[in-house]
Amino acid sequence: MPEYLPTAPYRGTRDFLPPEMSVRMQVFGHLYDVLERYGYLRYDGPLMESAEIYERKSGQEIADQQLYTLTDRGDRRLALRPEMTPTVARIIAGNAGSLQFPVRWYSHPNCFRYERPQRGRVREHWQINADIFGSESPNCEIEMFELVHDLLRSVGATEDMFRVRANDRNLLSSALTDLVGCTAEQLPQVFSLVDRWEKYDRDTLAGQAETIGLADKQFEKLGDVLGAGLALLDELPAPVKEASNLVRVLESDAAGLVHFDPMIVRGLAYYTSTVFEVFDVSPENNRALFGGGRYSDLAGMFTSQQITGIGFGMGDVTLMDFLATHGLAPSPRSEVDVVVIPVSEDLGGAARQVATRLRGTGLRTSTPLELRKLGKELAKADKAGARAVVIVGREDWDSGNVTVRSLATREQRQVPLDEAPTAVAALLAE
Amino acid sequence: MPEYLPTAPYRGTRDFLPPEMSVRMQVFGHLYDVLERYGYLRYDGPLMESAEIYERKSGQEIADQQLYTLTDRGDRRLALRPEMTPTVARIIAGNAGSLQFPVRWYSHPNCFRYERPQRGRVREHWQINADIFGSESPNCEIEMFELVHDLLRSVGATEDMFRVRANDRNLLSSALTDLVGCTAEQLPQVFSLVDRWEKYDRDTLAGQAETIGLADKQFEKLGDVLGAGLALLDELPAPVKEASNLVRVLESDAAGLVHFDPMIVRGLAYYTSTVFEVFDVSPENNRALFGGGRYSDLAGMFTSQQITGIGFGMGDVTLMDFLATHGLAPSPRSEVDVVVIPVSEDLGGAARQVATRLRGTGLRTSTPLELRKLGKELAKADKAGARAVVIVGREDWDSGNVTVRSLATREQRQVPLDEAPTAVAALLAE
Repeated sequence: MPEYLPTAPYRGTRDFLPPEMSVRMQVFGHLYDVLERYGYLRYDGPLMESAEIYERKSGQEIADQQLYTLTDRGDRRLALRPEMTPTVARIIAGNAGSLQFPVRWYSHPNCFRYERPQRGRVREHWQINADIFGSESPNCEIEMFELVHDLLRSVGATEDMFRVRANDRNLLSSALTDLVGCTAEQLPQVFSLVDRWEKYDRDTLAGQAETIGLADKQFEKLGDVLGAGLALLDELPAPVKEASNLVRVLESDAAGLVHFDPMIVRGLAYYTSTVFEVFDVSPENNRALFGGGRYSDLAGMFTSQQITGIGFGMGDVTLMDFLATHGLAPSPRSEVDVVVIPVSEDLGGAARQVATRLRGTGLRTSTPLELRKLGKELAKADKAGARAVVIVGREDWDSGNVTVRSLATREQRQVPLDEAPTAVAALLAE
Repeated sequence: MPEYLPTAPYRGTRDFLPPEMSVRMQVFGHLYDVLERYGYLRYDGPLMESAEIYERKSGQEIADQQLYTLTDRGDRRLALRPEMTPTVARIIAGNAGSLQFPVRWYSHPNCFRYERPQRGRVREHWQINADIFGSESPNCEIEMFELVHDLLRSVGATEDMFRVRANDRNLLSSALTDLVGCTAEQLPQVFSLVDRWEKYDRDTLAGQAETIGLADKQFEKLGDVLGAGLALLDELPAPVKEASNLVRVLESDAAGLVHFDPMIVRGLAYYTSTVFEVFDVSPENNRALFGGGRYSDLAGMFTSQQITGIGFGMGDVTLMDFLATHGLAPSPRSEVDVVVIPVSEDLGGAARQVATRLRGTGLRTSTPLELRKLGKELAKADKAGARAVVIVGREDWDSGNVTVRSLATREQRQVPLDEAPTAVAALLAE
């Protein structure tokens, strides 16, 4: 007896069968639509890049523990992209001379991280990236926040289901230095502590704060700062606030798009000022859906030209969990709109002619590959979600007609071949 | 001075900047449309699979020389898919119990082969796969051939630009055995020789035939067989012809879709009867565009259930070369339809309101991120391919109006805010 290989996909990766793929394509289609309507232009890049660009930029955790690397037959050390930003930075740097900045770009790559699979985490995920490159204006921040709202609305979310929380790392630095009394050396560790703030209990955090060298009073003050919300701004020096795009947004008529939250820092190293995260507010799925931020020197490892940018990456796993939590996932589409059934094999060519006409008007149309009795074909068409069938019989056909039948009402009528598309479209519109 | 990393993509892979990506998305969109209209359902699968499935099935050349392999941190030996068929075979085998055969499926994965980059060959390419699983009917062959014609027509090709050449490996086996006098042991090598027939000159082929052990007369007869076209069928035994789906197609009213050609064998090992290739007939690009065939036991390494299938894989590189050769590549879309320009920064919020209305009617609409003088913004909008702009001025806005301007005619008129989308749409329709 032969030994069969397992049919499960590689751990942490997924097979998408047609019903699930249909749901995904509908959701992604809405998101692409919104991005295109905002004037974002789609780009794409290779799955593999030199491993070095991630080791330099994506942070130690990714490079050391999560990167899939390989050596090609020409001894080049490559990695499967864990994220799209280094690739787009490379592309932007390589084409900076011919691009008219600012540019709005988006992409939808699959990305790879070696992680222990768990809710919200897989090894291969699909991530929509949207970025503006080449502008430092706070209008970019406003557009990003607007875009986030419109993207989520396009898949059915309402404003009460999510919250956009934003911070400016420079505001937080100032607060940590001026109000909490952190030293410059302590700042990176305190940022990291803030990043974990909502994940641990108070005692654990206090222990970690002590390790960093914060006094009890400082730890208390840190808690006050992180919980202060907008009131924190009153305590910060004017020049720091004036330099902040986020403060400008909060003072504008777009302030309602975002909640200022000093606790948001984002782990990734390359963000330099604005950072934001979109949270599901449902108690069942109270977590970050996706986030992004601004980087002052995107492509520093490729070029001396300083290119600023702001953008976000929206992963499919947390998005689909969000839609499921709120009952927003669309139903899979039917497999076809209409099936053309010849009553005998010799009418197969006639059925194909009819199908061609129907397809020409945009109808998703199939014909049976293995013809069975009419009753069985009708049941099969119904199961495939078709709402209409066209039956091709010998006498009908010889007189230039076909029979159009509704699978819902079982009513049917003879129509001239020319009128079949209109008759089917009418049934589908009912 | 810091050392900068190169901005070129990894050898044999490609960056797709927005103009090229726009062309690709249009072409792929047409192809997806045709597939959906035929009732093909989209699926997807992981980029990485166990390396073993390719080593068992994809042929020695791929496994030994072209496979990208890696070992994950859990010591699993993985490969980047060089093709989609083993993945879809695994998925079909794993879900055979719940699928209603026959099924029509398609996908559009990126695939990887370590090859020396040259015209038509890259290391990462995108391939549309379309298959019917679970039917042995010649209706499958007919549908595949119809589909191929419709796919190419959908991207602008006419029937004089390409030719679908098809063969049945069993017919060729019979001809080689019965007419050329090959032994069963020689058959695989002779198939391989036939596969190279159009690539080498007569002398080289004769030398290779001699190595296989074919006599001069046999080699001559082989040449006759391969060049015989439909006349070859007259020389073959009736039972062989009766068992051939392709012969049934050639005897049907669908015969015009395909040219019988004994020379087509396709390299890949898993094809078992029908094989076909689509050729560009232009003298400048006289080559196979893509091809496919029928496999009698698709998923034999995963299950004892015998699942038959027929399908093809259409790669992006040869397709784009074909479109370029025949002048069929579409132009990139404009970046946006309309730009909304506030005359001063304080009207930015007003401009965003207008933009939101325009987007709501499907118009691709941007607003300036870094506002410059009106003349410069008009020039920029023109460069982005916008055909209309909406100008938001203070007095207009305060009285509920905006100015809609044609970039072609430079005519402009004031309209109430509510009417802006209609006025812009009218300009775009001109």
